Amino acid sequence: LTLASDDHYRVPAEKVKNLCNQLFQKVGLSKQDAEIVADNLIFADIRGVSSHGATRTASYINRAQTGFYNISPNIQILEDKGGLILLDGDNGFGAVISKVAMDLTLARAKEIGCAICSVRNSNHFGAASYYTTMASRIDMIGFCCTNSPANMAPYGSKNSMIGTNPFSIAIPAGEYPDVVLDIATSIVARGNIINAVKEGKPIPDGWAIDKEGYITNDAELALQGSVLPFGGYKGSGISIMIDAICGVLSGAEFGKHILKSAGEASISGKNRGSGIGHLFLAIDISPLQEINLFKSRIDQMISEIKSAELAPNASEILVPGELEVRNFQNSKQSGILLSEATISELTELCKLFQVGNTLEYAKEM
Amino acid sequence: LTLASDDHYRVPAEKVKNLCNQLFQKVGLSKQDAEIVADNLIFADIRGVSSHGATRTASYINRAQTGFYNISPNIQILEDKGGLILLDGDNGFGAVISKVAMDLTLARAKEIGCAICSVRNSNHFGAASYYTTMASRIDMIGFCCTNSPANMAPYGSKNSMIGTNPFSIAIPAGEYPDVVLDIATSIVARGNIINAVKEGKPIPDGWAIDKEGYITNDAELALQGSVLPFGGYKGSGISIMIDAICGVLSGAEFGKHILKSAGEASISGKNRGSGIGHLFLAIDISPLQEINLFKSRIDQMISEIKSAELAPNASEILVPGELEVRNFQNSKQSGILLSEATISELTELCKLFQVGNTLEYAKEM
Repeated sequence: LTLASDDHYRVPAEKVKNLCNQLFQKVGLSKQDAEIVADNLIFADIRGVSSHGATRTASYINRAQTGFYNISPNIQILEDKGGLILLDGDNGFGAVISKVAMDLTLARAKEIGCAICSVRNSNHFGAASYYTTMASRIDMIGFCCTNSPANMAPYGSKNSMIGTNPFSIAIPAGEYPDVVLDIATSIVARGNIINAVKEGKPIPDGWAIDKEGYITNDAELALQGSVLPFGGYKGSGISIMIDAICGVLSGAEFGKHILKSAGEASISGKNRGSGIGHLFLAIDISPLQEINLFKSRIDQMISEIKSAELAPNASEILVPGELEVRNFQNSKQSGILLSEATISELTELCKLFQVGNTLEYAKEM
Repeated sequence: LTLASDDHYRVPAEKVKNLCNQLFQKVGLSKQDAEIVADNLIFADIRGVSSHGATRTASYINRAQTGFYNISPNIQILEDKGGLILLDGDNGFGAVISKVAMDLTLARAKEIGCAICSVRNSNHFGAASYYTTMASRIDMIGFCCTNSPANMAPYGSKNSMIGTNPFSIAIPAGEYPDVVLDIATSIVARGNIINAVKEGKPIPDGWAIDKEGYITNDAELALQGSVLPFGGYKGSGISIMIDAICGVLSGAEFGKHILKSAGEASISGKNRGSGIGHLFLAIDISPLQEINLFKSRIDQMISEIKSAELAPNASEILVPGELEVRNFQNSKQSGILLSEATISELTELCKLFQVGNTLEYAKEM
């Protein structure tokens, strides 16, 4: 446990993952499912996307304990048309359901070149690139998107009517790391504002508005208000389309009908989870192009973009996912970056569930 | 021919379409192909997207005459894996090739639920929503994207290294018009800057940079420089992914290797057209949800978004494609909006090719 900045520590990824895994088992997940959820969270931390990392553990545990998430879902294929599969997640953990969905998608795309899996009755699935990189690792192109609770104001409104609905595309490269885009349709992922609240910090201009529709730097007021779409009406439009595809098409919920917590479910008298939907897509590259030729062409594209002249004030041109790969290398060497707040939460959970706290142990050394 | 604003006229859509159709036939396109290209251009004008409308006629005619576009392409299926089809456009007009591609995609998606057609060796395909609305009109969801000549600076660079690479998604609705997103990954479509040059007008801050990387209001300098991606690194990342999928994956060209004109082809010693690639995707809705239920849920989504409270300074909340439908209704009633510059170009072409100029006739009345 190394102090990395004012209140962040470097912790070995495997230790945190093991701890999360044990905690998830304590609230009833199978060993296999606990491993998937923990792996999904630590994947994000390793890539430096702490908003989707171990910081979510406490919230996930709470959702399992309150019955908001189903700890042992019966995930079922409701329809299979060959190129299009419909999956019911039975309100399980998003990562557990989504791993099944992407596995199905990849297998089918391997057979017929391309496939889509539409998912209903799911929950927060963590980092979207967790699933798309399952494709790029086996020489396929992966795409996925999800809807999410209505925390964002569509262009022209001050109300939270749509989710920050993220999407990811992953494309294999050769010498370069795979190209991986993983973005929310908000200016920043809402997780960054949650982290700012936990850390008691202000947020920059433009990230979010308060309830009255005015830009705020107060992270608490921002959480009560709305985040803003990136690129104005364009990001707002993408988010609406993702809600239509993930929510409406799959038969999941959409917009304000996605629930945020057991509390909301209780108030609304609905005995269900978030009601989130996803869409997974995979394209097999080999029918279109010999894979090594494809990869060398992707390398050429990356190389040409990176060697362009810099804009005034820019220091480097990055392609999607490049920063995350640097974080990955750093995390492998020095450990993942956890905030003091997240470490405290995990420590509390370890006490509560009598799990040996390897983080505390390291801290005392 | 009605004077609509300082230098724009309202002209009946059918007249302009018929004129363009005749002009395309004069340079060697079959009656059927000329109809498709003309229909594609007027589709854009009718929806108020004049950047992709009849203003392109002169450029298309020039490209046909110089051999930069192949006027009678042999469009071939190179690969068919069931869910994934690879099409070679043989350097024909983009709209002619893309119509074939989307027809194939829709037919296959009807059979197996979802299909993709990847296209190489194509050219400028006009408005992307022309193809996606082919899907939404028959109760399917359509997606397409294309790469384009490198006119945009990726985030961090001042050089034009990537295209404005637009994409479109169309989703059928019930009582409301279909939801149709059709956006370039630049802040504005480059066609708007081309129009500003034709009309001798300045462009707003933020649209484009000059060759040295500084924001410019001079449309001419902007055309020599680069347009900027929307939403900073996010729009830039989407554009790079579209280039990888449309250009690299299909076996088309990408980045700087896409040619803009016969002149560029001649200078580079390459006997070919733009080398553009596209990707078309269709999802059949009926396997996932009874179509009327789906449409009523889309209507509900639209209705809920539109009835949200307005942001400070906003006058209305629009969903994707709503503005274009209003333009459509207006165009049907009063004619499409053509600039003086576009009318002059069409008039010149009519003289050159001895096509009866119905626009001039109307103007003289």
